[in-house]
Amino acid sequence: MRWAVLLAGGSGTRFWPLSTPATPKQLLPLSGAGSTAEEAVERLTGLIPRERILVVAGAALSARLRPLLKLPPENYLVEPRAASTAPALIWATWEARRRDPDAEVLSLHADWTVGDATAFRRTADAALNTARRHDRLVTVGVVPSRPETGYGYIVPGTPLDDGARTVARFSEKPDASTALDLMAAGALWNSGLFAWTADRLLAETARYTPEVAAALPKLEAGDVSGFFDALTPISIDVGLLERSGAVAVVTGAFAWDDVGTWQALARIRPKDPSGNVVVGPGVVQESHDCIVWSDRDPVVLCGVQDLLVVQANGRILVMPTERAAAMKQLLDALPPEIRDIDG
Amino acid sequence: MRWAVLLAGGSGTRFWPLSTPATPKQLLPLSGAGSTAEEAVERLTGLIPRERILVVAGAALSARLRPLLKLPPENYLVEPRAASTAPALIWATWEARRRDPDAEVLSLHADWTVGDATAFRRTADAALNTARRHDRLVTVGVVPSRPETGYGYIVPGTPLDDGARTVARFSEKPDASTALDLMAAGALWNSGLFAWTADRLLAETARYTPEVAAALPKLEAGDVSGFFDALTPISIDVGLLERSGAVAVVTGAFAWDDVGTWQALARIRPKDPSGNVVVGPGVVQESHDCIVWSDRDPVVLCGVQDLLVVQANGRILVMPTERAAAMKQLLDALPPEIRDIDG
Repeated sequence: MRWAVLLAGGSGTRFWPLSTPATPKQLLPLSGAGSTAEEAVERLTGLIPRERILVVAGAALSARLRPLLKLPPENYLVEPRAASTAPALIWATWEARRRDPDAEVLSLHADWTVGDATAFRRTADAALNTARRHDRLVTVGVVPSRPETGYGYIVPGTPLDDGARTVARFSEKPDASTALDLMAAGALWNSGLFAWTADRLLAETARYTPEVAAALPKLEAGDVSGFFDALTPISIDVGLLERSGAVAVVTGAFAWDDVGTWQALARIRPKDPSGNVVVGPGVVQESHDCIVWSDRDPVVLCGVQDLLVVQANGRILVMPTERAAAMKQLLDALPPEIRDIDG
Repeated sequence: MRWAVLLAGGSGTRFWPLSTPATPKQLLPLSGAGSTAEEAVERLTGLIPRERILVVAGAALSARLRPLLKLPPENYLVEPRAASTAPALIWATWEARRRDPDAEVLSLHADWTVGDATAFRRTADAALNTARRHDRLVTVGVVPSRPETGYGYIVPGTPLDDGARTVARFSEKPDASTALDLMAAGALWNSGLFAWTADRLLAETARYTPEVAAALPKLEAGDVSGFFDALTPISIDVGLLERSGAVAVVTGAFAWDDVGTWQALARIRPKDPSGNVVVGPGVVQESHDCIVWSDRDPVVLCGVQDLLVVQANGRILVMPTERAAAMKQLLDALPPEIRDIDG
């Protein structure tokens, strides 16, 4: 049967001061409706039933997600510590197979916005079919809409018989010029939407990912904490997909955004005629391409451009929107009493 | 005897959202110590006793000033409505002469910052002496430190026998190029620090200022409200000083600022090595020449320049510092529910 694994971890730094460790971006209504985590579960409706959606996150975040997502209690897999994506996905896939020996798994993240849920489901369905038919680890490659340097790219290889293709190579976070070249050559964004059978994923893990495979006996023994203690954190891309030959790519033609920085709001929210996005009370005059978010006080902007202005959680942040991509460096330099936000 | 008239009116718009109609800038601790109104009274210590300091302001503001300035109750002259500077100064001078037929008057504003109080008092003393000795309306011209276009300038004329000079002409709010020419030619800022004998001021008013003189019989009849109803608002500069021939100028060599816009904070407050002024909790990184004022939330600025960021009274304002000079136009364009601040 089909299972979904929703990766919901996150450090809560990218949307500072709105996001916090206890309320990372996947809990925020960034796109305007519910949280992106809720949207992620809703998006699977008709494709995978809620009782077969597993959610991987830390304890604090799991506690926040339970009343939002309303999945069966046993479907929250609580990571004792963050260890990147390979351990989370391998664990969840292992758990799906424990419950269902014939499990096939769709992996996705809780912090995406997707423009066309129907196209998303159609693509996910195709990816699951390809995973079964060709017994490969299937990546969904999203058609790029810009030469984004913050994403990984997939260069497709030769066609398979169902429209999927092999993967020629991966290119992680290229520079701007390389990103342009990749786009021109038909490379796709590596979205993190994956599909595989549990059997194939665990077989490839055993062969290619000793960082995690060596710890699997702990899981078999029911010792999740010991599993995390014994493994070496590594991403699924570096730790498995880039190493395995049994990989394929299915093209996804839907708007997709991982809402990685404040700049993403300019892509996923309505703008005024001058390109400004204003969420919360605010007035923008003679300004263009600004992003304003206020959870309390009216913000008045006059005569500025390309500026991010945020009031949230008792902090005010003002920076060029493009600097928002380097939020972590900014936070590292802030005094803890200003940086650290409770709750 | 010597009297001081402190003009304390103000609309409270220039330092929006910090200043409000009920708390205009002269009540704010803009320079870092007490309010500029308190500083104005303190600055007269040793020159004019507190019982001979008259304060002109509207009713609401007078109520706020009484506990701050602690002058005799009868020294607060409450304007029934704002009517520019000539009516206020003529009324206060008339009132000083009513109490003291030989009154000489020093006029000043409640919203100045002055760098050197001793030099200020020495100059004010000289101006009062010149006013008596030459029976003229004496202006104090401050040596300009920049080609400010927001001030009026005084072009001095021929020397009198005590170091004062006649006034060749006034130049109100020149353009930038004219301001540079005026500075180069030795023109002085028209500070609004004036000195005159009550007799001379009222004689000149009778001759040159029909807009106010025609209403004086109401004052004589004890009808202040009728006086204000009958007069035509006009400034002392336009309505009298620029019309009268009996004017002199005394040079003031002290740092003087009327704190007319947020930009003034960059002149009167300490700056960090990058030229930023931060009042209240804030962190400024990779930014220069910014002004930050927060009455509550920490403000984090990163990678910006020449920016004014204010949080006060439940509003957040972000604009280039140079735009702060046009605050009134901005406020006129704001929705009333954001613009208008209670209290």
